[in-house]
Amino acid sequence: MPSNYRSFRKSVPWLILFLETVFIILFYFSFQRYDALIRNISYTDFQDVNNMVIFGFGFFLAFLKRYSFSSTGFNLLIIVLGVQCSILMEGLLVLLQEPNKHDPKIITMAAVSMTAVAISSGAVLGKTNPLQLIVMTVVEIIIFHVSRWINKRFLQVPDNISMKHVHLFGAYFGLAVSSRFAEPSPRSEKNASTPKSDLLSMLGTLFLWVFWPSFNSVLAYGDKTKAIYNTYFALAVSAVTAFTLSVLTTKDGKFRMTHVHSAALAGGVTVCYTAESIDYPWIAMILGLLASVITILGSFCLQRCLNPALKIHDASGVHFTFGLPGLLGAVAQVVLLVIKKWTVLPSLGYMVMIYIGAFCLTISVALITGFITGLILNFKLLKIIPVSKYFEDQFYWEFPHLAVGF
Amino acid sequence: MPSNYRSFRKSVPWLILFLETVFIILFYFSFQRYDALIRNISYTDFQDVNNMVIFGFGFFLAFLKRYSFSSTGFNLLIIVLGVQCSILMEGLLVLLQEPNKHDPKIITMAAVSMTAVAISSGAVLGKTNPLQLIVMTVVEIIIFHVSRWINKRFLQVPDNISMKHVHLFGAYFGLAVSSRFAEPSPRSEKNASTPKSDLLSMLGTLFLWVFWPSFNSVLAYGDKTKAIYNTYFALAVSAVTAFTLSVLTTKDGKFRMTHVHSAALAGGVTVCYTAESIDYPWIAMILGLLASVITILGSFCLQRCLNPALKIHDASGVHFTFGLPGLLGAVAQVVLLVIKKWTVLPSLGYMVMIYIGAFCLTISVALITGFITGLILNFKLLKIIPVSKYFEDQFYWEFPHLAVGF
Amino acid sequence: MPSNYRSFRKSVPWLILFLETVFIILFYFSFQRYDALIRNISYTDFQDVNNMVIFGFGFFLAFLKRYSFSSTGFNLLIIVLGVQCSILMEGLLVLLQEPNKHDPKIITMAAVSMTAVAISSGAVLGKTNPLQLIVMTVVEIIIFHVSRWINKRFLQVPDNISMKHVHLFGAYFGLAVSSRFAEPSPRSEKNASTPKSDLLSMLGTLFLWVFWPSFNSVLAYGDKTKAIYNTYFALAVSAVTAFTLSVLTTKDGKFRMTHVHSAALAGGVTVCYTAESIDYPWIAMILGLLASVITILGSFCLQRCLNPALKIHDASGVHFTFGLPGLLGAVAQVVLLVIKKWTVLPSLGYMVMIYIGAFCLTISVALITGFITGLILNFKLLKIIPVSKYFEDQFYWEFPHLAVGF
Repeated sequence: MPSNYRSFRKSVPWLILFLETVFIILFYFSFQRYDALIRNISYTDFQDVNNMVIFGFGFFLAFLKRYSFSSTGFNLLIIVLGVQCSILMEGLLVLLQEPNKHDPKIITMAAVSMTAVAISSGAVLGKTNPLQLIVMTVVEIIIFHVSRWINKRFLQVPDNISMKHVHLFGAYFGLAVSSRFAEPSPRSEKNASTPKSDLLSMLGTLFLWVFWPSFNSVLAYGDKTKAIYNTYFALAVSAVTAFTLSVLTTKDGKFRMTHVHSAALAGGVTVCYTAESIDYPWIAMILGLLASVITILGSFCLQRCLNPALKIHDASGVHFTFGLPGLLGAVAQVVLLVIKKWTVLPSLGYMVMIYIGAFCLTISVALITGFITGLILNFKLLKIIPVSKYFEDQFYWEFPHLAVGF
Repeated sequence: MPSNYRSFRKSVPWLILFLETVFIILFYFSFQRYDALIRNISYTDFQDVNNMVIFGFGFFLAFLKRYSFSSTGFNLLIIVLGVQCSILMEGLLVLLQEPNKHDPKIITMAAVSMTAVAISSGAVLGKTNPLQLIVMTVVEIIIFHVSRWINKRFLQVPDNISMKHVHLFGAYFGLAVSSRFAEPSPRSEKNASTPKSDLLSMLGTLFLWVFWPSFNSVLAYGDKTKAIYNTYFALAVSAVTAFTLSVLTTKDGKFRMTHVHSAALAGGVTVCYTAESIDYPWIAMILGLLASVITILGSFCLQRCLNPALKIHDASGVHFTFGLPGLLGAVAQVVLLVIKKWTVLPSLGYMVMIYIGAFCLTISVALITGFITGLILNFKLLKIIPVSKYFEDQFYWEFPHLAVGF
Repeated sequence: MPSNYRSFRKSVPWLILFLETVFIILFYFSFQRYDALIRNISYTDFQDVNNMVIFGFGFFLAFLKRYSFSSTGFNLLIIVLGVQCSILMEGLLVLLQEPNKHDPKIITMAAVSMTAVAISSGAVLGKTNPLQLIVMTVVEIIIFHVSRWINKRFLQVPDNISMKHVHLFGAYFGLAVSSRFAEPSPRSEKNASTPKSDLLSMLGTLFLWVFWPSFNSVLAYGDKTKAIYNTYFALAVSAVTAFTLSVLTTKDGKFRMTHVHSAALAGGVTVCYTAESIDYPWIAMILGLLASVITILGSFCLQRCLNPALKIHDASGVHFTFGLPGLLGAVAQVVLLVIKKWTVLPSLGYMVMIYIGAFCLTISVALITGFITGLILNFKLLKIIPVSKYFEDQFYWEFPHLAVGF
């Protein structure tokens, strides 16, 4: 298909160069006072988040047999492109709201919000070409920040809380986008993993697992130490439970690697909302257990019932890895709030409504805009790839090496 | 063997769920004051130790051809399960001893003590099913803490010193357990590595190598900076020496990868005991050199003479990677103490006896209880696996992918 | 070739032991005051640099099909050997210059200067035996420190600036050494990568990418925070640009993995010189963009024109990965200085001359001494390996595993 290749050359580089030029010009006008951007920033936090989104997610998504170059490579591309867009949006929103206040965490928050993009790209893994991925990244980042701004403007949800919806937003945006793509043939040989690629994905998973407490502590507005150890306990219990449920749900009573990958991280996603406010480790542990349960049952049910019905193909299971645990976490936040403030606050009902409203709004925005983005991505202009070329590194990358044994 | 699989389903999940329930209940009663548990804790220390036990050991043990899923997966399982047990035991012992004092390092120390479990699991790598591993983990953690308590109660050995026996305890406990398992057939094809799996193990080794100074600094009660750089020097010299001795001891005068894996880390194990008290880098360097020598000579002698005689099959060479260097470190500690306090202390003899007593006691406890644990693990109830299924991922994990090329 | 193997046994171990003995003796005499060596040192900085040189470069260079053991193993060997030599040289130079001053960063700086060795070893990757590598390491480290001393003594270039030439020195020293080695046959099957080994190299690259901001902040003498974020912006833009230019320069309009590997890091190398003095992110971003352009165009031109003409075989492309971006960074430093101090300083011309003199001097020293070192390394005594054994792990390492599928 040489004509197709030539057309990639005509599109991808110019789109990237155009975006980079726009970004550099906007940076020129936006950040005259560099010091304000980076004053008081914690490098350790920033580095840990970076480790996760660049290294962790890159390898977490590298489980497809013939798609490991694209998983790690395109992940790098969209993260580094998106983070620039995200810094600009964060800066813009801060400027719009409080022109005189400077949030020292703009850059770190921009890196955190890239999680949404990494998750969404997981949902359409192998089905999008770089052109589509880039468009999706930019659109998603802009919408995510707008969604946060709506949350803040109309529901008075503080920035930290709305940032915690990052997993939910990423998962449902990705799913909605994914629903607009043709399903791969169920007999496709390429939509599968090998033991080697599963192991690479395990490498990414373990890396994410180890750094997840840092991630939640970055999002915590209160007691960061509590956030760290609650996350650790939730992750520990969810990893243990993952093994239990994997044996119970598989046909032969064996462990399934993808169960471990998803469910080991589920605890971290769930506890994200409440990490800094949980006062006893056992609560975090129970949340971790529930997260693992919902993930593995979700993977069981979704893949059998819901996804085929809705014609959604969720390439790396982001729905049950990030979507459902995120939902559980948001609900847990409300429940814990109710329990904690039962006697204290007369305006409890109002607060509960705000919290529920916030995550419902976020999911709705994610679903609707994701759906529209999915439609846009299927414009002919973006050179949609044929189903037969799904999950195929060789469509995008040079393979001078014979692909034997790959 | 479908009947066997079904029976795994009947045992593993329920054991894990039972343990998790017990842990959550005990956490409920033990840590009402969460703040005390995490006050003043250093997250960097905790994170580095976690990086080592979860990521580092997971891949360090992934050198077997067909056992990389189990190496990384089961390592995650037993570490996250064991760490909860360990936190409870630490909390209990602190409570027993000084009800009013709170050690801010309980969680970090619990993670450190998981090294013992990771090392022991290395000794029986490929020969135990998850059921046996879980039982071994819980038993080992409890005994390790009891052994530390005996050390403290009867020999007045401070907590930090007794924690330094973690490598020794892990190695000898694992060896004693291993002696109760049937030896694999020497012609077993599966008890071998491939270049790829050796490289994965190198990845784990380099990760452990880089983080080892953090590990020793966590255990240091005095000058943490000194502990870090002494460890670094010892590690550097032991890595260099590893290459030297590997060429000298192999048949063709080539390097052997497993020599590099073991001996590069030996310096860190040896210097653990004395890292914070060594005043000159050259002493640390000489200790690193000796550690490497003892490891490679040990690997040469043990595998040829001692192990066949005692019918011990040491799957990943923990005896010479952690056991012998640990022993050397314990002796070096006594020697350095004698040299340092020759003139100062009249009660030197008494102190020397205490130090020697402490590590002899630890090793004895490890050997005896390890032997008993080995006997327990071979109860029919725990579904011992046949020798033909040793070192075999497919016995435990789903392999939807054809295992060709694995 | 059994006679050859036996002779490795007669040389490598004794050379290493001799060097270690010398190092230990020199440490004995040099660092009586250990505290001075490690006082006020930042462990985080040291650990990040170590992560990069041990883990990052080890895997960055592991892209050759049959040379991954040697890439990671020998990298460990020369780094840990070289760092001891480097600490001694740093200590000696500090002593020569200011006997009463103690630089608390000696150890960290020693680790930083190992980057030069890692880069040079990349230029001769697969063509040198361990004997040659060890000699090259020791010679290079000594010359690098002497070159820095000349820079300081005769051009009054401060230590931090001269340390920033580390990439330039490493690249041009390595290229000059490489020019003295026989070229591999262009049809050599072994001088190639596989998808798996490219992915391993991607792992190393992503690791280096994430830690590069730390590296530049260690070298910054002024505002470390600025250095970190300028580096980050430069890296982000250079990674994005790498994808653009890769599509534009390859035959089919596809991405080339090696382009991504080199160009993603180029921004970090370029911005190294100016990271702490750039006041606006957009300048760092433009530098990152230029770095990526020069790297990919360089890779295009050098491999087609210059290298064949000069008969240089640059095994891992260090010329365009570290050499050209380093050159660009050094020029950018001068240009930014001129722009910044245009009106302020009458002695601007003098300063510009010093800066230009410094990097010209460094490159000249690197090229000349590298050339001489290349000649020395080809002495018969050092057992030069035949071209047919280039890029071959099995020449140095035991392969008990059948090498099938490797």
